Amino acid sequence: MVNTKILDGKLTSEKLTEKLKLQVANLAKKPTLAVLLVGDNPASEIYVKAKLKKAQSIGFDTIFEQMSADTAEEIILEKIEDWNTIDDINGILVQLPLPSHLNKNKILNEIDEEKDVDGLTKFNSGSYYTGVKDCVVPCTTRGIAMLLDEYGINVEGMHAVVVGRSNLVGKPTAQMLLNRNATVTVCHSKTKDLESIIKTADIVVSAVGEKIINGKILKNDSIVIDVGIERRSNGKITGDVDFDSALGHASFISPVPGGVGPMTVIALMYNLFDLYRRQQHLLQ
Amino acid sequence: MVNTKILDGKLTSEKLTEKLKLQVANLAKKPTLAVLLVGDNPASEIYVKAKLKKAQSIGFDTIFEQMSADTAEEIILEKIEDWNTIDDINGILVQLPLPSHLNKNKILNEIDEEKDVDGLTKFNSGSYYTGVKDCVVPCTTRGIAMLLDEYGINVEGMHAVVVGRSNLVGKPTAQMLLNRNATVTVCHSKTKDLESIIKTADIVVSAVGEKIINGKILKNDSIVIDVGIERRSNGKITGDVDFDSALGHASFISPVPGGVGPMTVIALMYNLFDLYRRQQHLLQ
Repeated sequence: MVNTKILDGKLTSEKLTEKLKLQVANLAKKPTLAVLLVGDNPASEIYVKAKLKKAQSIGFDTIFEQMSADTAEEIILEKIEDWNTIDDINGILVQLPLPSHLNKNKILNEIDEEKDVDGLTKFNSGSYYTGVKDCVVPCTTRGIAMLLDEYGINVEGMHAVVVGRSNLVGKPTAQMLLNRNATVTVCHSKTKDLESIIKTADIVVSAVGEKIINGKILKNDSIVIDVGIERRSNGKITGDVDFDSALGHASFISPVPGGVGPMTVIALMYNLFDLYRRQQHLLQ
Repeated sequence: MVNTKILDGKLTSEKLTEKLKLQVANLAKKPTLAVLLVGDNPASEIYVKAKLKKAQSIGFDTIFEQMSADTAEEIILEKIEDWNTIDDINGILVQLPLPSHLNKNKILNEIDEEKDVDGLTKFNSGSYYTGVKDCVVPCTTRGIAMLLDEYGINVEGMHAVVVGRSNLVGKPTAQMLLNRNATVTVCHSKTKDLESIIKTADIVVSAVGEKIINGKILKNDSIVIDVGIERRSNGKITGDVDFDSALGHASFISPVPGGVGPMTVIALMYNLFDLYRRQQHLLQ
């Protein structure tokens, strides 16, 4: 039996929070995060609240604006344009998902590249996927990278299997693992025989929102990063991995909750801090 | 023994050339391709010549400018800016590689996104890697896609192994195969046990410039796309695959020369045609 260690995102996030607090306390001016929420999706409201609270706890200023779900695209674009021109705003976040009548790409790409704290504009994406160094790493991906670093995990030469190919998680995480010299396989809904591919993974990142992984299909000593979030009817949150069955097989596993979730939020804070320093020419 | 079929890029390119000629003949105005070559790298000169000749044979106008290797970056940026403003120029290509004193990204990103015929600006890359449909597919990748289409090869559900992770070939080709619903593994110089990974590939794309693949390590009935180019001392051009030994193992193989090379050139022509039509609002 393998002695499985927990990748504690909650604890790591708290450590990184304290570290960032000290750095922010030394700044002459507080960085400001502006968050726009369109509609009243309950999950989005919870996420936004957590982000604002964390930002404030670190010493950032925050601006929050919520618009009704039927807001015209033009109004949203004007708000972003407005925020782009305000020097005191250092990072702009538009909470996803957006109501379906809105053109997501058009709205995201309205964000000034220098204030793109989520890293999802096409300008930043182009830099990120082509290997430009001084660009924003999307938050969940950066959170995973920070968690790997905290536990001293070097993925170079490992076979990494990423399940899911979203712009938010799967694609940027595959790119991050490739940047760190893993051999990377991207799987998705059309993948045949997913289990036998996962069986070959030294590290597996799952972001699909379905219970697809259990201990039986894991290679011994593999590293398991669970990005799945499923809210059960009993209020409990679970991930893509059957956690209990993975114990004894995986060398490391990130739990849900308390794994990637808090890491995503703290990564956002570090992204804001980096944008601020870049804008102030404090960072190369 | 498998009856290996040849993916004839030369023949396919000729067919696609004839088809494009007819479409171009119907246009009120000829599309124009502008090509900038910095320095006198002999291979680059050969490539540029081939592109200009093909463009002219199709009925495009061409502009070619060659600058000495020690040209200041400012001069190059001004030239691109100039070309950006000329309405008659529909596509701008800066031949790579550039001399090492130049900032490649800065120069590429100077090209107006609407005229980015190679698809290598960060604006187009961002659109491409995040799945926006109406963007430019980098030429070698589009050439491979056109070759697969010509031979009716549907990669959905296949395990695709891409060897190489360059912005020019490896990364965009992995993305193209992912877009077509293959399960995609990206391998590179840090990959361990490359041979056993290739052995699991239903389709393998190799773009490393070294003879790394032979029949013994291919899965039977696999599809082999050879993007390697090595100029031997005897003047002969060969690829990454030991062609003769792959016969009898692969179901399809693209030869070098006469495979991906001519497909890359014809893909560039289709990219120009698409840019032209987009600029003229003839294409959605």
